[in-house]
Order: sequence, then C-alpha cells, then structure tokens
Amino acid sequence: MAPKALDYDSLNENVKKVQYAVRGELYLRASELQKEGKKIIFTNVGNPHALGQKPLTFPRQVIALCQAPFLLDDPNVGLLFPADAIARAKHYLAMTSGGLGAYSDSRGMPGVRKEVANFIERRDGYPSDPEVIFLTDGASKGVMQILNTIIRGEGDGVLVPVPQYPLYSAAISLFGGSLVPYYLEETANWGLDVNQLRQSVAQAHSKGITVRAMVIINPGNPTGQCLSEANLREILHYCYQENLVLLGDEVYQQNIYQDERPFISARKVLMGMGPPVSKEVQLVSFHTVSKGYFGECGQRGGYFEMTNIPPKTVDEIYKVASVSLSPNVPAQIFMGLMVNPLKPGDLSYEQFIRESKGIIESLRRRARMMTDGFNSCKNVICNFTEGAMYSFPQIRLPPKAIEAAKKAGKVPDVFYCLKLLEATGISTVPGSGFGQKEGVFHLRTTILPAEEEMPEIMSSFKKFNDEFMEQYDDHSGYSRL
Amino acid sequence: MAPKALDYDSLNENVKKVQYAVRGELYLRASELQKEGKKIIFTNVGNPHALGQKPLTFPRQVIALCQAPFLLDDPNVGLLFPADAIARAKHYLAMTSGGLGAYSDSRGMPGVRKEVANFIERRDGYPSDPEVIFLTDGASKGVMQILNTIIRGEGDGVLVPVPQYPLYSAAISLFGGSLVPYYLEETANWGLDVNQLRQSVAQAHSKGITVRAMVIINPGNPTGQCLSEANLREILHYCYQENLVLLGDEVYQQNIYQDERPFISARKVLMGMGPPVSKEVQLVSFHTVSKGYFGECGQRGGYFEMTNIPPKTVDEIYKVASVSLSPNVPAQIFMGLMVNPLKPGDLSYEQFIRESKGIIESLRRRARMMTDGFNSCKNVICNFTEGAMYSFPQIRLPPKAIEAAKKAGKVPDVFYCLKLLEATGISTVPGSGFGQKEGVFHLRTTILPAEEEMPEIMSSFKKFNDEFMEQYDDHSGYSRL
Ligand SMILES: Cc1ncc(COP(=O)(O)O)c(C=O)c1O
Ligand SMILES: Cc1ncc(COP(=O)(O)O)c(C=O)c1O
Repeated sequence: MAPKALDYDSLNENVKKVQYAVRGELYLRASELQKEGKKIIFTNVGNPHALGQKPLTFPRQVIALCQAPFLLDDPNVGLLFPADAIARAKHYLAMTSGGLGAYSDSRGMPGVRKEVANFIERRDGYPSDPEVIFLTDGASKGVMQILNTIIRGEGDGVLVPVPQYPLYSAAISLFGGSLVPYYLEETANWGLDVNQLRQSVAQAHSKGITVRAMVIINPGNPTGQCLSEANLREILHYCYQENLVLLGDEVYQQNIYQDERPFISARKVLMGMGPPVSKEVQLVSFHTVSKGYFGECGQRGGYFEMTNIPPKTVDEIYKVASVSLSPNVPAQIFMGLMVNPLKPGDLSYEQFIRESKGIIESLRRRARMMTDGFNSCKNVICNFTEGAMYSFPQIRLPPKAIEAAKKAGKVPDVFYCLKLLEATGISTVPGSGFGQKEGVFHLRTTILPAEEEMPEIMSSFKKFNDEFMEQYDDHSGYSRL
Repeated sequence: MAPKALDYDSLNENVKKVQYAVRGELYLRASELQKEGKKIIFTNVGNPHALGQKPLTFPRQVIALCQAPFLLDDPNVGLLFPADAIARAKHYLAMTSGGLGAYSDSRGMPGVRKEVANFIERRDGYPSDPEVIFLTDGASKGVMQILNTIIRGEGDGVLVPVPQYPLYSAAISLFGGSLVPYYLEETANWGLDVNQLRQSVAQAHSKGITVRAMVIINPGNPTGQCLSEANLREILHYCYQENLVLLGDEVYQQNIYQDERPFISARKVLMGMGPPVSKEVQLVSFHTVSKGYFGECGQRGGYFEMTNIPPKTVDEIYKVASVSLSPNVPAQIFMGLMVNPLKPGDLSYEQFIRESKGIIESLRRRARMMTDGFNSCKNVICNFTEGAMYSFPQIRLPPKAIEAAKKAGKVPDVFYCLKLLEATGISTVPGSGFGQKEGVFHLRTTILPAEEEMPEIMSSFKKFNDEFMEQYDDHSGYSRL
C-alpha cells in the first residue's frame, strides 16, 4: 500500500519536531511504575490539587450554583450555600447568554473581561481596557494563539529564556518558527543579562533569523526567580530598541515566597516608562486560574491582555479565536472569581482568607525546605525558589556517571532522574527538558508535595543522591558551572 | 518606526486568510443593533441554550457535586440532590487525580475514555479501544489538531463538502493547506455523489495538489442531510482506493428528525465492509457535548476516536495534546454523562427521559415548521432538515436585487441577510459563508428559536422576503439552480 496521510512518515514535520519533556520519558515511566503498584510522587507538573492542595470553598460554591441554577429556586439552598455565594452565582449567571451551556463571545464574556480589567487597574495603577483582554482555556492556549499569529516561518525568531517552560519551544516548533535562546545566569540567582540578549540576537541574525518577539517568564519556571523592576525596565527598553513584541508569562504572579522582590507586572513597568516606550512596545501578558491559591488547573481558564496592539490585529486574533467558538464558560467564571475576590465584611471572607493564606504560607515554607534539602546533598546546589512552584537544583554529575549514562544510551540527567524514580518514586523532569548550558545538569521538581510529607521526600532524595554520588565518584574532582 | 511583529502587515499570512462567517459581518452588525436596543433573534450559531433550551437536570446535578465535593459530606445534601446524582458524582470524582482542579492525562481521564469506548461499542456493535479515544475541549479543537497533524503545506489537499461548516475552511487556511471542494447536490436532497469527488480530486491534482484527507459532516451542517449507509460505503470505498484519511464529523448524531435515514456512524459502516477496507482506511470520528439533547456548548467537551491509525502517530498526537496539558475536566465528566446515560429503574430516569425526549421532539416539529415556512415564501426553496440544527433555504435573488447588492458593494446574499436583519432582527448567516455554487444564493438559520416563537418568526421572515422579492422583481423570470 502507498503511505497514508496519518502514517508516521507522512505527518507534518513540525508536529514531529515538537518536544514536551514535562510529560515525556520520565512521566511515562512513572505512569508504568504506578500501574505496577509503586507509590509515585508526581512532581513533574505544577498540578497542586493532584498533590493535595484543596480548592478554595467559595469559588467552588459559586460555580456549583452556576452549573445547577435550579438550586437557586430551592427553598433549601441556604442550608448548603452561604448568601454571598448565592449572590455571586446570580451575578455571573446574569452575564451569560443562556447559562454555562451556551457558547459565549469568542473573546469571553464581556462582564468577566471587565472584572479582569478592573483587577489589572487595581494591581498596576494604570487603566486597562476589556476590549483587548481575551479569555482563554488556560494560559497555554493563549500563548499558542499569539505565537501562531506572529510566526510566519523559519526566518522568524522568538527569544526564549533557557532554562524555559517547554510550552514555548514546543509551540515554536509546531508553528515552524525558530527558537532563539538566551541563557539565564544560574550564579546570579537566574538573573537576566541584557548583554546576553544582544549576543543571542546577533547570533540569530547571522543565521538569517529575524527576532520578532521575546518571552519572559516571571516568576520563572523552572528557575523560580522574580525579575526586579530595574531588570524589567532594561528588557522593555531592549524590546523598544529592537522592535520586539514582549510576551509576559505571569502565571505565577501570586506565587511569591520572599519579600525583597515582590511581583511587578511588565505592563506596570512599561506604563511607568512613559512615551515613546510606553506607547510603542507591543506587549501581551498572560495569566491563569491554574496557579496561585486557586490552583484550578483542570478547569482550564486564563486570559491575555494586549498592550499597544493595533485594532486590526486584535480583530484578526478575535477572528481566529472564533474558529473554536468560545473558551469554556465555567473557567471564565473562575477567572472572574479570582480577579474579583471577596472583600472584608463579606460573609465568607474570613474563610477565604484563611484558606488562601494557608496555601501560600505553606508553599513558602516548602520552598525553603526544598532548597535547604537540596543544598544539603552531595554535589547538588540550588538557588532559592523566590516564586512560582519549582525547584531547579544543579546536579554535578561525576564523569563516571556521565560515562555510565552514555553506556545506557541516556542523556546524563535523564539517567540520573530515572534512577531517582526507580529508587524513590519521585518523578521529576530532567533539566535537558528545559534547556541548560552544555555539560551542566539539573532536574526540576515542584514544591507541591504535602508539607508533612516533605521531610521524608527530601531525606529519601538525599539518601538516593548521596549513594549515587558515592557510587560514581572517583574522587578525582571535577568542575562545576 | 519599523514595522512590529504584531502590526497587521507583518502577521502570519495564514492567520489573515482565515474566514469565519458564522461570527462575521452579519453577527457583528447584529451585536451592534442589539446594543442599540433592537431585539435580535440569534440564529447564526447552533447554540441551543442561548435560545432557551434548558440543560438536562441530572448531568448538572452531578457536575455541581463534583465541583463542590464538600457537599457530599453535608448531612443536608439529600435535600437538594437525588441519590443517583450523588452516586454518580462519587463515581467521577474517583476517576480524577485530585478533583476537577487537577490537570488530567492530556488524552482525558482513562475512566471517561472507557465509558466512551463502551458507548461506541453499544452503538455500532464493534469493539472500541479507549487508548485511541482522546477527549478534547469541544469537537472544534479535535478537528483542528488532526488537520494540523495532516497538513504539511499548500500541496496537501483536504476534500471538504460545499456547503460546509466553516471550521474546516478556516482550519485548513490556518495550517496552510489547500481546501478541495466537493459539491453536495441540492436537488438530490444535498446528497453526495462519488463522481463529484473524483472530479474534484482530478482537478486538484492538475493544480499540483495531493488530496490526503476527506471530511464528511453527517448529519450535515449547514445542509441538514443524513448520509445513507450505501452512500457511506461508497465514500469509504473511495477513501480506500485513493488512500484518503476520512474525518467523520458526527457531532449531530443525536439530532435526527425523520425515520427513513437514522444516523449510522462511518466507523460502523467501515467495520461492516470487512478487510481489506476495514483494516486499511484511516478514520477519525468526532463527537461533542455541544449538540443533541445535552446542547452543552459552553462547557467545551468533545472526543475523537481513531481507527487504523498507527501507534507511532497516536503517540505524536498525544505529545502535541500534552503541550496544552489537558482538556478541561468538568466537560470530560459531561462527556461521561452523555455516553453513559441513566438507565430504566434509576431514580432520575423518568425525568431524564422526559427532558431529553421533549427537546428532540420539539426540534423535530421546529424542523418541519421552518422548512414549510421557507417553502411558502416567494422565490425560496428549502430541503427538509433531516438532521442537525439548521435550515439552508435557497434564495432566488432577482437580477435587480443582485444589481442593487453590487451597487451597495455587498455580496448578494450578504445584502439580503443584512436587510433581513435590519427589518426583522433575525440574524442569519449568508450562504457564501459556507460555500455554494456560482450564482446560487442561500442563507442559514438554526431551527433553535423557541417553538412558541417560531410561527411569528416565520411570518415576519415571509413578510420581509415577499416584500423584498416584490421590490426587486422585474417579472421577467430568471433561472434557478
Ligand atoms: C510558565 C507557565 N506558563 C504557562 C503555563 C500554562 O498554564 P495553564 O495552561 O494551565 O494556564 C504553565 C503551566 O505549568 C507554566 O508553568
Ligand atoms: C459540523 C460541526 N462540527 C463541529 C462543531 C464544533 O462543536 P464544538 O466545538 O462545540 O464541539 C460544530 C458546531 O457548531 C459543527 O456544527
């Protein structure tokens, strides 16, 4: 038979080029082991509820009522739901055009987009326009849509931090563009050096690639750093000079574990720079209901906000969004609930604060436990997780371990992570899945395992690691970084 | 300033080429009129809840409990929820890995995929494998993913019925492929003639296009026809001969309004043909929770099932699905509820049957009212809506109307539909948005307006149409079809 269109050999080559390590070899092996009955600690994906983080009560009450609006007519509704949840459910139902079962406008419901704009205004102190805020099925879908709009072919480059969250490399492959890496400085707490950017752009240029856009992830995944205002200003200035669209992935803006560098949005910094920069730099900022104290990953809710994007382009983005009709409506309401939280005096306010603070404070403690745990291990060094949900320790593999990996036909960090998985059930992602400098190795874990399990996990990690290092150490010494 | 990446002129050309009439000029004008206070009857999108179709009670009870699982521990839960909804909520929660707020496997939850496989087995009488069933955020996303996997460039053609649902033309443009039209025969009740296919493929070939896939929409949108078993067999045989992947869009399989031609799935026909055809033809079938008696468009739930697709290709499709992490979990549960409905004897069964039958029987009456209404109008002829949710009358525009349209700078059917909108508030989609033969004009409406409003809508349509025809008729006679 002749080859068919869905035979492997005849698939779209860009599809084949896509790599996505977060659910790659390690994850598949972990799933197998789980099926065989081994206890697996899944720290490969930032999926808080899967590791025991409880959903906030109030948003879930509201969404339950929105899904079952007939309960609002039931005389017993007050026995199961507080009055403010009932009121809020009515508020959102009134925004829909036929409840949660009707397609909304393809940009999302106007009422929720207005709530998002109000949130941004309160956060940044600059006005925000709901007409350029689009709701999406999670931030991933938004990022993909914007990259698809920008990328025309191999000659179009996108600056992406390395290490990076592999959504970016995957989407750039899928749309046939070129990833232009810029390295974050591990020894400078994963800081971003604008000279690095210049070098990367020059190098791309020499290969015939025009860099058209730049991605920042702030707070960082997998690196956990928070960008300072000064650093953001440099970046924006650079984008202005080089005519780059800035994609600001700010999904972890609520996940901050130190006080020296609070989250500051790229948009706020841009607005503060004044014209011409504030009027010229094209910026798209992304947010989600998956992270922060919501952690509602499975609901698939997000938004992007466009700054300085011409109306004709906004129309094109709207048109393409229309092709898949509308983002899911329940998650639009979650987004509304996230950006328009309860206020002091509201009936459920105390509970909401107790729950949300509890989550963030525990994450803060866990960030510390993990960093300290890693730094207590032989040949492991780890920057503190300032924000986001990840720890990204460097694993200084002895030459003998690298040799053993080669013999086993594995990339060295994959070799290490597989052994870790088999020995302890801890399912991590090798650093090579995010990009790292040549000859330097990492792994990524989330800081999400339950706080009470953390000491045991870290000690089982230490036991594995220190034995591994002992086994492969030839005591000759080797270089780091 | 130099052009920036998100300036209109520098966007991805494929994005600009996308057309999506369902939410195009007519929809935008209708939205404007609505803002100005005019009553608009939105019949442009198959969005049943937006036009008053009530959600089924039982699935909404189950999902409300899944969203608020703490209710299951409340002693009062039985006052608001029946026991079978409580049991079913527990059933689905047990399938999740952390409730509705956790990302699921990127293919969807194994438990729901098993329920889908069981449904397909019961429906078709052939075994179905959950490993090749992927859940999606609505059928649209599935269709787009499969087309993206197939299309490598302009040289790759996809056979699409004309008239068609514009998701197909839009996605093919976006991914840079070539749409190869095959015309449905209006005079043969929108039947599909395999000779037509041959001609279309030959014509494409002469332009250097290799046809790799074929789309069927059964029941049809916008045309409303149901394909017969014999016709499906011819199509599959043709796909076998020509090595075409068949994409079977079967989202309207529950929307059937006559008894002569019940829905039969492409997969069932394929399996019935026996080897070699049944072993060779690559088939992807799509379904959704948006249509049928669920009509849960806003939830964004769907699935696709792959037949005869090599495992390596399935792996690639899984990998790309992973990039956006997981389909939304609540809609996965809606899918479970749809394919695994209540059974006789279940506590809520009577109510479920009453509600679901009520919906389909009313749609059946409305299909008839609309067809008859259109056929009673001057210069309008309309095939009966055998299935799906649409009426697609041919509007025989007099030459003077076509001239007037030209003067107004409008495509003739757009001209007619705009006048209809302004005069009556009925928001339709011009036939040109779906494709039609040169010089023949149509419009599409859904059959979804409330049954009690239907007589008034049809008489206001007739009044407008007959006056329009009177105004432009020069009584000289003109040809049809
Ligand atoms: C940096 C970053 N961006 C975007 C996302 C996507 O999140 P979602 O699609 O759930 O909103 C993630 C998820 O882990 C992430 O880490
Ligand atoms: C023929 C056809 N296919 C697919 C879809 C997409 O439906 P959804 O994405 O809501 O599942 C529609 C929606 O109207 C349709 O008419």
